[in-house]
Amino acid sequence: MARMNRQWILKRRPEGDIADGDLAFVETPVPATPDGHVLVRTLYLSLDPTNRIWMSDMDQYMPPVEIGDVMRGGAVGVVEDSKDPNVPVGAIVAPMIGGWQDWHLLPGAMVRQIPQIPGLPVTAFMSVVGLTGWTAYFGLLDIGKPKAGETVVVSAAAGAVGSIVGQIAKLKGARVVGIAGGPEKCRWIKDDLGFDAAIDYKNEDVGAALDKHCPDGIDVNFENVGGEIMDAILARMNNFSRMPLCGLISTYNDTGERKGPSNFQQILMKRILVKGFIVIDYMSEFEKASMELAQWVLEGRIKYKVHVEPGLENAAKAVKLLFNGRHDGKLLVGVTPEPSA
Amino acid sequence: MARMNRQWILKRRPEGDIADGDLAFVETPVPATPDGHVLVRTLYLSLDPTNRIWMSDMDQYMPPVEIGDVMRGGAVGVVEDSKDPNVPVGAIVAPMIGGWQDWHLLPGAMVRQIPQIPGLPVTAFMSVVGLTGWTAYFGLLDIGKPKAGETVVVSAAAGAVGSIVGQIAKLKGARVVGIAGGPEKCRWIKDDLGFDAAIDYKNEDVGAALDKHCPDGIDVNFENVGGEIMDAILARMNNFSRMPLCGLISTYNDTGERKGPSNFQQILMKRILVKGFIVIDYMSEFEKASMELAQWVLEGRIKYKVHVEPGLENAAKAVKLLFNGRHDGKLLVGVTPEPSA
Repeated sequence: MARMNRQWILKRRPEGDIADGDLAFVETPVPATPDGHVLVRTLYLSLDPTNRIWMSDMDQYMPPVEIGDVMRGGAVGVVEDSKDPNVPVGAIVAPMIGGWQDWHLLPGAMVRQIPQIPGLPVTAFMSVVGLTGWTAYFGLLDIGKPKAGETVVVSAAAGAVGSIVGQIAKLKGARVVGIAGGPEKCRWIKDDLGFDAAIDYKNEDVGAALDKHCPDGIDVNFENVGGEIMDAILARMNNFSRMPLCGLISTYNDTGERKGPSNFQQILMKRILVKGFIVIDYMSEFEKASMELAQWVLEGRIKYKVHVEPGLENAAKAVKLLFNGRHDGKLLVGVTPEPSA
Repeated sequence: MARMNRQWILKRRPEGDIADGDLAFVETPVPATPDGHVLVRTLYLSLDPTNRIWMSDMDQYMPPVEIGDVMRGGAVGVVEDSKDPNVPVGAIVAPMIGGWQDWHLLPGAMVRQIPQIPGLPVTAFMSVVGLTGWTAYFGLLDIGKPKAGETVVVSAAAGAVGSIVGQIAKLKGARVVGIAGGPEKCRWIKDDLGFDAAIDYKNEDVGAALDKHCPDGIDVNFENVGGEIMDAILARMNNFSRMPLCGLISTYNDTGERKGPSNFQQILMKRILVKGFIVIDYMSEFEKASMELAQWVLEGRIKYKVHVEPGLENAAKAVKLLFNGRHDGKLLVGVTPEPSA
């Protein structure tokens, strides 16, 4: 009997929050492996705010997922069958573009073999030494360019990207203020990650707290959120400050007319540089960043947290955690147990 | 009897459009010239959208004009009396920061002597070879960086800055689309200045016209206006496009809650670079830009238009022309007739 590949299919585009029925859980037979291809069993699926963009038909940086297609997502898996001599069975690989499913059948050239580095688990390559860490690294260093002594503000600071951004900024000698939701997240970024200050946007007036914690204004805003928090930050940015625009998660579930930042004028008055970026723009430099990030992790200078929700069948529920803040660090779905070494 | 210096004083901050009574016309005696100072008789006063910013108390790039102070503005004049050996009587000079008045009394070090270049009238140094031309030059070339074959869109394209931006972009080999108000302005930028296309925002659907005239999308948007026109442009910008943010004139008279661009998300999705700038940031490079601009003008490769409203007493009325579009090119007030050569 053919083995069955469980897949999450985009059934309809969400309106506002992702709802039951937007995604459907189906099964299709696992196909045989053609020449030049590899069959990859998914170990972990990565859940990211950008998943919500792909589900929509808004103007975006890649084509949206088509209705009826397997939901797109980052993934890591183990090669179970290989008809490509360059990719051995048992290799841990990441498909260039993965999906929410048990198996990926791909040309061998379309998978990247994950390096094995003692001390770094597979999940590190799905977070701090993967797309998440690269996003923090390039957005902060290539666009934000923090100098020692400058003030860096990070929104969604306890998130997968924000928590790395703040730590890299500290390594560069900046003063770092993080904005996160709830006392436990604020405690984590301040006490465990070494941020200079944390602002709990659920329980504090963000503007007043920024005034308090950024007495010299803001030189870099690594922006993940948008909306009112971004407006409060814009109002306090310095002349010639920089704003890597990484995400606008507060707006992804919006319906109706989108509202732009009411402090947009500040970009003119303060000569702010705002630059949108998507991590794949930096693909040619991923390996360089990986080396530096891996070293920082192994030296204990960068900490990271991974939150694994077990079971592919729970992916459609788990993705909502990104929008209600009920997770810590990098959000993964555990699809298959890791093979023992 | 003491000579009297006519001055426009900021009496109260305008709410919305500039209204009668926001500025008051007063007279004070012309003081004697102290050592190290020069007395400059104003020839021309420059009227610029930024005047409206200085009248307000919004967060801005210089301190606002204080209530009761002489209204700030660019000016050019002739030295009538000099107690500074470096500045001869009869020299044509621009005060670093001028005012809406007949005479400027300033330290000699605070005036810049206007070079005399055969073929270039004094008004050229208040427009294409002055702050206006520099604004176009640095915003377009330093931030916009148009490449040959790229599409550049300029809003307020028949304005003092926009008309120069479009012509420099043409010199760099770009395809240039200007947005202006009314058929006569559109005719001017297309037929006389050589823009590839002109969009009349008063009589055309800007979005549809951009679709028609920018079939390959937009690579550079030199933004002077903001509001709905900017949103229509943002929706059509290409990946990795650039947006020098020079002005937001459509918003300067706004009262109540400011509305940001509803297509702000595009900055993320298309990885757009948005950079606010103020021409004074480039002060150290003004002379270099002047040489190049003067040469282009003398070679007939850049054309410019100056609109002189006569009479300092009309300045408060004339400044409104900036906001209702009823002028062409650079707006000046003629304060005193130029001395005959």
